[in-house]
Amino acid sequence: MAYRETEKMRNRKAEARKRIIECTYECVAGGGFRSAQITRIAACAGVATGTIYRHFESKEDLFAEIFRIATQREVDKVAEALAIEGNAVARLEAALRQFAERALRGPVMAWSLIAEPVDPKVEEERLKFRRAYAELFEQAIKEGIGEDSLPDQNARQSSTCLVGAIAESLVGPLSPAQTGGADQADNNDHDPLVDSIICFCMQGLTGARR
Amino acid sequence: MAYRETEKMRNRKAEARKRIIECTYECVAGGGFRSAQITRIAACAGVATGTIYRHFESKEDLFAEIFRIATQREVDKVAEALAIEGNAVARLEAALRQFAERALRGPVMAWSLIAEPVDPKVEEERLKFRRAYAELFEQAIKEGIGEDSLPDQNARQSSTCLVGAIAESLVGPLSPAQTGGADQADNNDHDPLVDSIICFCMQGLTGARR
Repeated sequence: MAYRETEKMRNRKAEARKRIIECTYECVAGGGFRSAQITRIAACAGVATGTIYRHFESKEDLFAEIFRIATQREVDKVAEALAIEGNAVARLEAALRQFAERALRGPVMAWSLIAEPVDPKVEEERLKFRRAYAELFEQAIKEGIGEDSLPDQNARQSSTCLVGAIAESLVGPLSPAQTGGADQADNNDHDPLVDSIICFCMQGLTGARR
Repeated sequence: MAYRETEKMRNRKAEARKRIIECTYECVAGGGFRSAQITRIAACAGVATGTIYRHFESKEDLFAEIFRIATQREVDKVAEALAIEGNAVARLEAALRQFAERALRGPVMAWSLIAEPVDPKVEEERLKFRRAYAELFEQAIKEGIGEDSLPDQNARQSSTCLVGAIAESLVGPLSPAQTGGADQADNNDHDPLVDSIICFCMQGLTGARR
């Protein structure tokens, strides 16, 4: 009986943790980390604010967890795009396009992940994930050099140039000042923007005019 | 008499503020924002910690001021390099090289300015300065398009790609894990690194193989 009680409590705890994470995610996707207040998250998750601190040491730890979950999703999408059929040039272009288009479709969350000023603890996660993207690109660039679809280059340096170029060039278009802080599900005017970013990046990699 | 007293006090206050800024700058240049503790800064400046808070509302405000001073110096250097004789391609290359070489000569401060996880208040300054760099590059790119030394392109997008590519590709080489947290005044092994960053950036701009 004592054992079943414990399991029930454990399940309830896991359930509360899941709801806290879901509600925080929604808050951040709706208005960035800045707008995700603990009282609001607690109300949404139907728990006391104190309960949140039983699951996460601090607001920053909770935010770091949300950052990891949301960014891992994007890293996986880039990895998927890099796994399509074709040479490295085509695969890298697809991955960059995937990254930019997904960001522009969910600009609030993308802005929070890429550029929102956040606590150093969350910023640490950001640096780690930038390395994760760079490593994916680096691998594809090496394959491109090996198969001769890309000229010889320092794959590691080029990969970080790619990450920087695409992230930085999205900062302005994604910023709340530009988007009004709202997601634009059916705004397809992004094509020229995405095209010009991809053009710079692919020229940087290939040295060939597009 | 009362007037002279006031002026003397004002001078002393200005003097203390100057020393606080200088000492904070030194601390940051020596070990990043993280290592710049208020007690250490106060000891170095020869003031009580309370005095620091009479000059700056918070540690974050003091850090934001240091960030502005240090970054403005770098922005000015880039502007200088962009003002040399030559076409836009040559001037942009000189500016990018200037930026990268200066960063690698003072990696601790450069890492703090470019990538150290910092308080959101300081991060806000970082976003502003990234726009300042981008605006300088954008102007030069427009001139390049006008004089036909650069192909037609979205100058604004390309300028942010440049800022992102050069900053991001320096993050790894500048990180304390790489540099051991020390400045390397006479290490000239950076040339291949700088060359590969410049190569990517200039190819991105020109679409011509280098």
